[in-house]
Amino acid sequence: MILRDMTWTDVRDLSRSLVVLIPTGSLEQHGPHLPLFTDSILVTAVAEGVERRLPEKVLLTPTLWLGASGHHLAFPGSLSASFEGYVAAVSAVVESLIPHGFHRFYVLNGHGGNTSPNDIAMRALKARHLEATFGHSGYFAFIPEDASARILEGPAKKMRHACEAETSMIQHLRPDLVRLDRRVDDGLTSEPAVQGVVHHFDECTENGVLGYATGSSPEKGKALLDLAFDGVTREIETIHDGYVLR
Amino acid sequence: MILRDMTWTDVRDLSRSLVVLIPTGSLEQHGPHLPLFTDSILVTAVAEGVERRLPEKVLLTPTLWLGASGHHLAFPGSLSASFEGYVAAVSAVVESLIPHGFHRFYVLNGHGGNTSPNDIAMRALKARHLEATFGHSGYFAFIPEDASARILEGPAKKMRHACEAETSMIQHLRPDLVRLDRRVDDGLTSEPAVQGVVHHFDECTENGVLGYATGSSPEKGKALLDLAFDGVTREIETIHDGYVLR
Amino acid sequence: MILRDMTWTDVRDLSRSLVVLIPTGSLEQHGPHLPLFTDSILVTAVAEGVERRLPEKVLLTPTLWLGASGHHLAFPGSLSASFEGYVAAVSAVVESLIPHGFHRFYVLNGHGGNTSPNDIAMRALKARHLEATFGHSGYFAFIPEDASARILEGPAKKMRHACEAETSMIQHLRPDLVRLDRRVDDGLTSEPAVQGVVHHFDECTENGVLGYATGSSPEKGKALLDLAFDGVTREIETIHDGYVLR
Amino acid sequence: MILRDMTWTDVRDLSRSLVVLIPTGSLEQHGPHLPLFTDSILVTAVAEGVERRLPEKVLLTPTLWLGASGHHLAFPGSLSASFEGYVAAVSAVVESLIPHGFHRFYVLNGHGGNTSPNDIAMRALKARHLEATFGHSGYFAFIPEDASARILEGPAKKMRHACEAETSMIQHLRPDLVRLDRRVDDGLTSEPAVQGVVHHFDECTENGVLGYATGSSPEKGKALLDLAFDGVTREIETIHDGYVLR
Amino acid sequence: MILRDMTWTDVRDLSRSLVVLIPTGSLEQHGPHLPLFTDSILVTAVAEGVERRLPEKVLLTPTLWLGASGHHLAFPGSLSASFEGYVAAVSAVVESLIPHGFHRFYVLNGHGGNTSPNDIAMRALKARHLEATFGHSGYFAFIPEDASARILEGPAKKMRHACEAETSMIQHLRPDLVRLDRRVDDGLTSEPAVQGVVHHFDECTENGVLGYATGSSPEKGKALLDLAFDGVTREIETIHDGYVLR
Amino acid sequence: MILRDMTWTDVRDLSRSLVVLIPTGSLEQHGPHLPLFTDSILVTAVAEGVERRLPEKVLLTPTLWLGASGHHLAFPGSLSASFEGYVAAVSAVVESLIPHGFHRFYVLNGHGGNTSPNDIAMRALKARHLEATFGHSGYFAFIPEDASARILEGPAKKMRHACEAETSMIQHLRPDLVRLDRRVDDGLTSEPAVQGVVHHFDECTENGVLGYATGSSPEKGKALLDLAFDGVTREIETIHDGYVLR
Repeated sequence: MILRDMTWTDVRDLSRSLVVLIPTGSLEQHGPHLPLFTDSILVTAVAEGVERRLPEKVLLTPTLWLGASGHHLAFPGSLSASFEGYVAAVSAVVESLIPHGFHRFYVLNGHGGNTSPNDIAMRALKARHLEATFGHSGYFAFIPEDASARILEGPAKKMRHACEAETSMIQHLRPDLVRLDRRVDDGLTSEPAVQGVVHHFDECTENGVLGYATGSSPEKGKALLDLAFDGVTREIETIHDGYVLR
Repeated sequence: MILRDMTWTDVRDLSRSLVVLIPTGSLEQHGPHLPLFTDSILVTAVAEGVERRLPEKVLLTPTLWLGASGHHLAFPGSLSASFEGYVAAVSAVVESLIPHGFHRFYVLNGHGGNTSPNDIAMRALKARHLEATFGHSGYFAFIPEDASARILEGPAKKMRHACEAETSMIQHLRPDLVRLDRRVDDGLTSEPAVQGVVHHFDECTENGVLGYATGSSPEKGKALLDLAFDGVTREIETIHDGYVLR
Repeated sequence: MILRDMTWTDVRDLSRSLVVLIPTGSLEQHGPHLPLFTDSILVTAVAEGVERRLPEKVLLTPTLWLGASGHHLAFPGSLSASFEGYVAAVSAVVESLIPHGFHRFYVLNGHGGNTSPNDIAMRALKARHLEATFGHSGYFAFIPEDASARILEGPAKKMRHACEAETSMIQHLRPDLVRLDRRVDDGLTSEPAVQGVVHHFDECTENGVLGYATGSSPEKGKALLDLAFDGVTREIETIHDGYVLR
Repeated sequence: MILRDMTWTDVRDLSRSLVVLIPTGSLEQHGPHLPLFTDSILVTAVAEGVERRLPEKVLLTPTLWLGASGHHLAFPGSLSASFEGYVAAVSAVVESLIPHGFHRFYVLNGHGGNTSPNDIAMRALKARHLEATFGHSGYFAFIPEDASARILEGPAKKMRHACEAETSMIQHLRPDLVRLDRRVDDGLTSEPAVQGVVHHFDECTENGVLGYATGSSPEKGKALLDLAFDGVTREIETIHDGYVLR
Repeated sequence: MILRDMTWTDVRDLSRSLVVLIPTGSLEQHGPHLPLFTDSILVTAVAEGVERRLPEKVLLTPTLWLGASGHHLAFPGSLSASFEGYVAAVSAVVESLIPHGFHRFYVLNGHGGNTSPNDIAMRALKARHLEATFGHSGYFAFIPEDASARILEGPAKKMRHACEAETSMIQHLRPDLVRLDRRVDDGLTSEPAVQGVVHHFDECTENGVLGYATGSSPEKGKALLDLAFDGVTREIETIHDGYVLR
Repeated sequence: MILRDMTWTDVRDLSRSLVVLIPTGSLEQHGPHLPLFTDSILVTAVAEGVERRLPEKVLLTPTLWLGASGHHLAFPGSLSASFEGYVAAVSAVVESLIPHGFHRFYVLNGHGGNTSPNDIAMRALKARHLEATFGHSGYFAFIPEDASARILEGPAKKMRHACEAETSMIQHLRPDLVRLDRRVDDGLTSEPAVQGVVHHFDECTENGVLGYATGSSPEKGKALLDLAFDGVTREIETIHDGYVLR
């Protein structure tokens, strides 16, 4: 069910066991070749695809497109919520519906920078609403690593940023928005390796890319998105139909 | 210019005298016959229309669709930000762009409940960024009262909620989303008159309507929207081209 | 009833159907001729007048004199609360009384800059206390436009700031505080017209005045205040005695 | 100088070495015999007296009458700010004046419950404005203990609440507001002694009194207030005229 | 009982009449001769000593060592919480235990700068948990003035900062951490006296000391600490065993 | 260098290229057999070990032991900060030192629940202090998966909670605090698998354990800790000595 198109009387009559699916994206730099709305386009597509497969099990909200993108703000056009503001938005969606009996919520995320604030939002909501179910994950976490390693041809086998994978997916969904000739490769690593340092993107890359965008193709994009559709569909269906902890 | 579709390098090359246009809407009950996204649909349409007329003078952001709708929360499906969260979102959009030199911002509002928090957001931003220009208004404030009085046939001559005017405009833009047979009239007044009391919609109306929806037509909707396009275009153009206080 | 002069045992014995009347003012520049406390003096006078007429229907609190006056801060002597602090103060007054059974609250405002935060405060309170009644309005909103147009002789027919109307009212109430010889006229408009831009007063006027102060007289002030007394009295009485929504 | 009665041009012309004097009071229960505004009446009187003695050294603001009175809220009529709201109000007064060059601030307090938030407010302000001078104290802290012990006849020799001292001072200033026949004595102690436990007043006393009100007289009130006038005057004068740390 | 060493099943089986004892310290400059952790070392020692005497009456938490030390931040190495953050920490400890039935809490403080935020924290907690008991005090408040005047030989007879008293106590507890040869005397006063001005330590002293450290000895330290142990033990025992207000 | 034991003059003389190491732990249930302080004990041991190896490269603060443990609060004795309070504490430590020129900070974490708020804290600090370096990681993230898989004998090869690994490490460090006879195994999984749902521990386990504690031994604990020492030492040394992004 698509919340935005319904009337309040339609919502009144819905089953309360629906999983409320809340997509979270961003509007932030994705290199010189991808639109600022890349993450929002991708997560919205996955969420809408899942809703089409599970219309009786999902209540889909519009995408919260203003993400936690402080590490991209040096690139003009990037917009970022504060962490507090971001958490407030996600929480407000949930807590508007809880008094009406909805009790299953899943934040489907399209932007790595939202992962920590989504975690905090869901944990704080859980602490206030102990009987309800809250989940969150990036759609990209449902693409198995071995599968993405088979699909991607560049040296980076995981999704990074404005990379082979993201470029391919946007090429599949919105080819009109990809500036193919501006694609660049950028294979950033630290030498020697450090694992925990927080870097802003302008410290690492001049063009905003982390990865190997030149190898992108719409076919790869479709293959990756199909895996995401499958994984997210399975996750949401499990939450709807029930599972056992033991 | 449409921010969401641009790359960061496109934005880098823009003129800083553009007026950043930020539409604010809601997802809230609009009676049994209009979609929850009514305000967001309408304000987005006006904003996009203005951008089409003034592409070299406007930088249009996506619509902030999560409004301040606490007074509708008794109707299932309505979502509301807290006032703080709402103000944080509007402010974050602005303050992401200010460091890059953009200095003219206009919040175009589609939901009466956002008026006060928009005012507070803009005034607080002005206090922090004295050299920049901040404006806000409902698109409906640009429909002259005498004109709307001519167009509307029901007894209420001003826009209220899920009324003859809003229904007509959605019929014009998204006829697929109007449940014509569910339209109702509701001519609420207080007796004797009070003017300052804050009422939740469930205190006033069982169906969520304030106004005379049964008289709606797509033609009326087009006429009203054309007036809004004209008024908002004039306002934005004046801010862009300059005006004198004396 | 005047809260500040009562003892707690007096309050204990009051009827809970009293309307708690909370005046909100400011301490901010009012041109070179009016005292900083202008708004607070005026709203306090109206509120006290209403209490004298309706002693058995009103419980009057002291005036919250620290307003939301950020747009006047460039003029020395102006004091301003933050919006959050302002809302906190109004809300604290209300929520101190609710546990004791008072359930009707009306904020009578004397400063235009408080209108939005008063709206937000009352709406947030309403959302937390659904059974209670909350209202707010400027006292000036009860002066009918046709009447003020008859009384005022200058070209501006509505109340602006440190103008013919405000100067006249202070002359009536506190002639000792008006520096008659410093009155100035200032007929600011924007050319071409813009309607939604937020301006600080130092952007518009060197002396802090918006309006035609030189035409002021105590007689005009009395006439305006009498209209305000009448209008506010009627509003409060209606809330106390009851009204029907239909 | 009395800020509320001045115009902004008057303030513009003031010396910046003035000590801004900010009285803080409360509106809270003071037994069955004293008005809710007791603390505000007393601190305002002291502050006004000091201003009269040192008009060229003091800039007096209106009294912030909404105190931190959570421990009295069980008694109807008591109003309390939150701690955050209280600190915000005091800080807003200061930070409205700092940009205009005022740099000496003294909070004169009339309510024991405000002492800790005044301390926090002043310390946080000091950390933000290292070059400015901030002070705060209760006016009662300037009444020497041996002197009050000589003046008071009841067994409690220090000021408590709605006690011999406070009743006497209100009798001196506002005899019309004291219900003499309702005065009571209440000599509360804990047995055995504890010193650090936070008690609400309704845990300790049924009538709201801590102390020996029946012995009050206007003469004692005048004697106490004169001591306060002297002490506060000396403190403010020292801050104005300068002192050396060594 | 020592909370940190227990398992949750141990805590489950505890009596709920235990007084939860929460030590609060600081990590801030204490002159050139004492460790930054001085306050935390001292308050922890007192709290542990009290727990050893009253193991069946006390549940001791670890020391909250991050204090409100903004007035020491000019000295490198000093760490300070914001007031809000400090209050949040103390409150979180309490409100984690209240749902499990613990209802007596005592904050034992080792740093003067924490006194006001401890007061605010305890009062706010009391307002939210009316049936529970909250207390707070500095351990130093339990050293009678006449006794400390007998023990200390320098001209300052009360505990100040990095002074004869504090140096002596650290010498007794952790002689390895005292740089005896760096001890200095500093007998700061203001001339003429002011009592309410907030000073940062770098305004008063170059070395961070207020007092007469050179006279310190471990014997004096032991004598002072024994008095603190006795006083705090008596206070906690009274709260545990009960007392009467009358 | 151990901050707590130093004087401010010692800190004044330190090199500013030191990495400030801030351990974060928890006080929360760890099954019926491990102390509430388990995470704090472990992370403190690792941090102290690293400081001993790199005394000239590390400035070690005391452990922030109050973690984000809301998901354990159903088990008595667990304490939890709010997310805001937790972030405030970490940030306060950093921002006390930045004005003195320290510019490298690393939060070493001992509790999985702190990961998201550590991420948010470090990212917000980075946005405020663009020139400084901020890192964070769990010490456990430095134990290679293949190595822990070799060391652990139970079916779970990764660290979970109060499990074979944690029990072993506490046995190595503080054998006196392990109740060996209360160890239990708990091999929780969900059936079918879900990956993003937030569960409180009382929803999953009656005893608070996730993992196979019965196989624990001090030897395994030492082996795991040695790997953590090595990994964290390498990370901190790299940050201190410098690395290149390319």
